Amino acid sequence: MSKRIAIIGAGPSGLAQLRAFQSAQAKGANIPDMVCFEKQQDWGGQWNYTWRTGLDENGEPVHSSMYRYLWSNGPKECLEFADYSFEEHFGKAIASYPPREVLWDYIKGRVEKADVRKYIRFNTAVRSVTFDEATELFTVTVHDHTKDSIYSEIFDHVVVASGHFSTPKTPYFPGFESFGGRILHAHDFRDALEFKGKDILIVGSSYSAEDVGSQCYKYGAKSITSCYRTAPMGFKWPDNWEEKPLLEKVDGDMAFFADGTSKHIDAIILCTGYLHHFPFLPESLCLKTDNRLWPLDLYKGVAWESNPKLFYLGMQDQWYTFNMFDAQAWYVRDLIMGRIEMPETKEEMQKHSQMWRERELTLETAEEMFTFQGDYILELIEATDYPTFDIEGVRQTFLEWKHHKKDDIMGFRNHAYRSLMTGTMSPVHHTPWIDALDDSLEAYLNEK
Amino acid sequence: MSKRIAIIGAGPSGLAQLRAFQSAQAKGANIPDMVCFEKQQDWGGQWNYTWRTGLDENGEPVHSSMYRYLWSNGPKECLEFADYSFEEHFGKAIASYPPREVLWDYIKGRVEKADVRKYIRFNTAVRSVTFDEATELFTVTVHDHTKDSIYSEIFDHVVVASGHFSTPKTPYFPGFESFGGRILHAHDFRDALEFKGKDILIVGSSYSAEDVGSQCYKYGAKSITSCYRTAPMGFKWPDNWEEKPLLEKVDGDMAFFADGTSKHIDAIILCTGYLHHFPFLPESLCLKTDNRLWPLDLYKGVAWESNPKLFYLGMQDQWYTFNMFDAQAWYVRDLIMGRIEMPETKEEMQKHSQMWRERELTLETAEEMFTFQGDYILELIEATDYPTFDIEGVRQTFLEWKHHKKDDIMGFRNHAYRSLMTGTMSPVHHTPWIDALDDSLEAYLNEK
Repeated sequence: MSKRIAIIGAGPSGLAQLRAFQSAQAKGANIPDMVCFEKQQDWGGQWNYTWRTGLDENGEPVHSSMYRYLWSNGPKECLEFADYSFEEHFGKAIASYPPREVLWDYIKGRVEKADVRKYIRFNTAVRSVTFDEATELFTVTVHDHTKDSIYSEIFDHVVVASGHFSTPKTPYFPGFESFGGRILHAHDFRDALEFKGKDILIVGSSYSAEDVGSQCYKYGAKSITSCYRTAPMGFKWPDNWEEKPLLEKVDGDMAFFADGTSKHIDAIILCTGYLHHFPFLPESLCLKTDNRLWPLDLYKGVAWESNPKLFYLGMQDQWYTFNMFDAQAWYVRDLIMGRIEMPETKEEMQKHSQMWRERELTLETAEEMFTFQGDYILELIEATDYPTFDIEGVRQTFLEWKHHKKDDIMGFRNHAYRSLMTGTMSPVHHTPWIDALDDSLEAYLNEK
Repeated sequence: MSKRIAIIGAGPSGLAQLRAFQSAQAKGANIPDMVCFEKQQDWGGQWNYTWRTGLDENGEPVHSSMYRYLWSNGPKECLEFADYSFEEHFGKAIASYPPREVLWDYIKGRVEKADVRKYIRFNTAVRSVTFDEATELFTVTVHDHTKDSIYSEIFDHVVVASGHFSTPKTPYFPGFESFGGRILHAHDFRDALEFKGKDILIVGSSYSAEDVGSQCYKYGAKSITSCYRTAPMGFKWPDNWEEKPLLEKVDGDMAFFADGTSKHIDAIILCTGYLHHFPFLPESLCLKTDNRLWPLDLYKGVAWESNPKLFYLGMQDQWYTFNMFDAQAWYVRDLIMGRIEMPETKEEMQKHSQMWRERELTLETAEEMFTFQGDYILELIEATDYPTFDIEGVRQTFLEWKHHKKDDIMGFRNHAYRSLMTGTMSPVHHTPWIDALDDSLEAYLNEK
C-alpha cells in the first residue's frame, strides 16, 4: 500500500507541495496518495481575496490578509517559479510589480497545468492532528463545511502549509476601549477608500505599515501618522505623512506619542505583525516561534525535529517567497520519497539547525538577510531536481529594489527588472503606480 | 471519588451553572468538582466588552458582540435573577433599561457573593471534547494561553455554555467584493461614532438591525436605510431612517433594492444573525440547529438526548435570558446530582421534546412566543429549588414593553416597570435615552 500524505492548506506552499510530487510523477516516479485540506472555497491562500473580515461564512477565521489595490511590494523577478515563468504564463513579458489578481492568476496557472486540483478538498477546515506512537501514523480530523460533517483519516506524513500571516498580533494601548472610531489590525484592512479624507494612525514600521499607509495615501487619506517602537522607516514620505515614536495612549480622538506630541486621528490601523498559530496541533507537534529567518526545531527549515514525519513549509520570515516554498516542497518530497536521507538522530538535525541559527544571529543589514535566505534556498535546491536558478541575480535585484525604495517610496514600483529565469527584461508598466487606481488584471495587462 | 463537571464558558449561562451547584452546597449538599473553562481573561461572556474584533490577543475568535453605548433592549424586570435582585445588588431600585456596564456589574455581583470565581480557568480555550464509550467519560482538551500549554482532563459531565451569538452568519451580496467602504457584521460593530455623518445600510430586520440602527441614529449617522427579507420592522422611524425590501446588489457606492430603488451608502452593517458553532465538539455530541425557541435533540431543552451526560445551556432563541439560564442550570444540576430522574430511554426524551416542538410550530405572535418560553421556564423551576417567580407578571411586562416600542421606538427605554422579584416599582431614568450619550455605570446610577 502506498504512503498517504496530508497537506494542510492550498496556498502557495501547499500548492508547491502538490506540484513537487506531481513533477516527480510526470518523470515516472510512483508518488504517495495526497490529500490537501483547504478551508477556503478556492485555492491560492492569501492571494484568494475576500471582502470578509474576522470569521468567514463557516465561522472559521478568515485566512487572507490581503486588501484591494494590493500590488506586489517586491519585484516579481525575486519570486518567480523556476519551473514556470511569468512569460510562459502570460505569453509575454509583463511589468515587475503585479497587483494581487495578476499574481493569483500566475500561481493558479502552474497548478492548473500540473492538474493537481483533484487532490484538494475545499471548504474543509482541519480540526486536529494527532500522532500514534504505536502505529507511527497521524490522524487528521476535519470539518467538511459543504456536507457539515466531521471525519478523520490516517496519514503517514503531514505537511503544515497553513501560513503565518493570518492570525493578527494585536497589542492594546490605553484608551482603545473608549476611542470613538475604528481600530483594526492590518489583517482586517480591505479597502483604502474607507479612509479617504481621514486622519489615519498606523502603528508599526514594517512592511504592512509601509504598504497599508501608502494605500491610504494613494486613495486620498487626509493625513497619515505612523509610529515605531525601534526606528522610523525613514523613507521620503509625502508631506501629509509623519513618522513618530511609539503611541502611548489615545484619549477621545487624540493620539499621544512617546515624544510628548499629540495628533487628531479618525482611525487606527495596527500593523503589528502576526502570530504563528496552529490551533489544530497538539503541543508535541506544534512549532512555536516568533517571525524570524531561522526558527528552531525545523531540520533544513522544514522537518519537525522531534518527529520528522511532520513537515512545515514557509514558516520563516520571508524575503524569498514562492521559489523558497518550492525549494522546501521539493526537499520535503525527496525526504518523504527516500531520495534524500534523513539524519539518524535528532542531535544531528539540531546541530545543523544550530549552525544556521548562529549565522542568523549575526545578521544586521537587509542585504545580509536576503543573502542568508538565498544561501539557504541554494542548499535545498542543490539536493533536488528543482531547476536551479540565479540566486546571485536575485540578490542583486533585491539590492536594486532597496535602492529604488530609498529613492522614491511612492515610485519604486515604476521600475522594471530582468527575469532570472528567462533572461528577458521586463517592460516598464504603462502607468505610474500612484496613478493606477484600477488594480484589475485587465488594467494591468492593458487588456481593457 | 466525586464526579467531575466541565463547564465551557463563564458567561451568564456558565456562571448560572456554578451558582446552581454552589447554592446546593450552601444548603449542605456534596457537590461535584467543577472546572469552568473561559477563553476570555474575565467573566461575563457577551457582557465583557472588548474593543477587539475578529480574533483576540490569543488568536481566538472574539466572543463578545456587544458595542459601546449598548443598553438593554428589554426591561431588566424580565431578566432579573430570582435569587439576587437588582435592589439587593445596587442597594436601591434602578431604572429599567440599564447599559451594558450596569448589567455586567449585576451579573458579577451574584457570583462574587457566591464565591465561585475559584472554579474558573481564564484565558483557556477549549480545543476538543471527546467521549469514551468504554469508560463513559469525557476528555476535554484545552489551550491555556497564559502558559501557552495544551492539556487534557477527564470529566463525568460536560456543560456547554458557550452561547450562540458569537459566530456571525454573514451572507454575500453581489458587488460586495468591490464596494468602496466598510462592510461589517453586527458582531464587529463597536462604536457608532465611526458612522457619524454617514449613510448607513443595515441588512436585516431583527433585534440587531433595530438596535444597531438606533445607535447609529443616536450618535449622528446622516441616514439609515434598513432592508428586510420578509417584513419591515414597522416602527415609527425618524425621518432619516427608511425601510426597504431586500438588498439585491451594490455597485460602487450605490445599493440596489428588490423594489427597484437605489440609494447612496457609505457603510454596510449586516445584522443577519448568528450560527450555533461548536468547533470543539465531535459530530456525535454537536447540536445543530437554527436560532429558534425549541431546538430538537435536547431533553427539557438542556440534555443531549443521544448522550445525556452532556448538557447545553441557553441554546434557545431568547425572550427570557438570565433567569431562563438559571432555570436550566438548576435543572441540569439536579439531573447530575440525581435529584431529578433522567428518563430511561432516548425515545421517552424525544417524545417530550417533540411535544414542545409541536407547540412551537403553532406560535405566530410575539405574545404567544414569550408565553411559550415562560411556560417552559415554569416547567423547569417547578422541578427544582430555584425560587419561583411571577412568570405571568413577566409576560405582562413583555406586553407593555412591546406597546412602548410600538408607540415610540426611540423612547421606549424611558419607561419603568415593577420588579417581579421584589415588587418595587423602578424609577424612571433621569435622562431620556436619546439624550444619554454617556453609557457608564456612574452616569446611569447618577454617581458622577
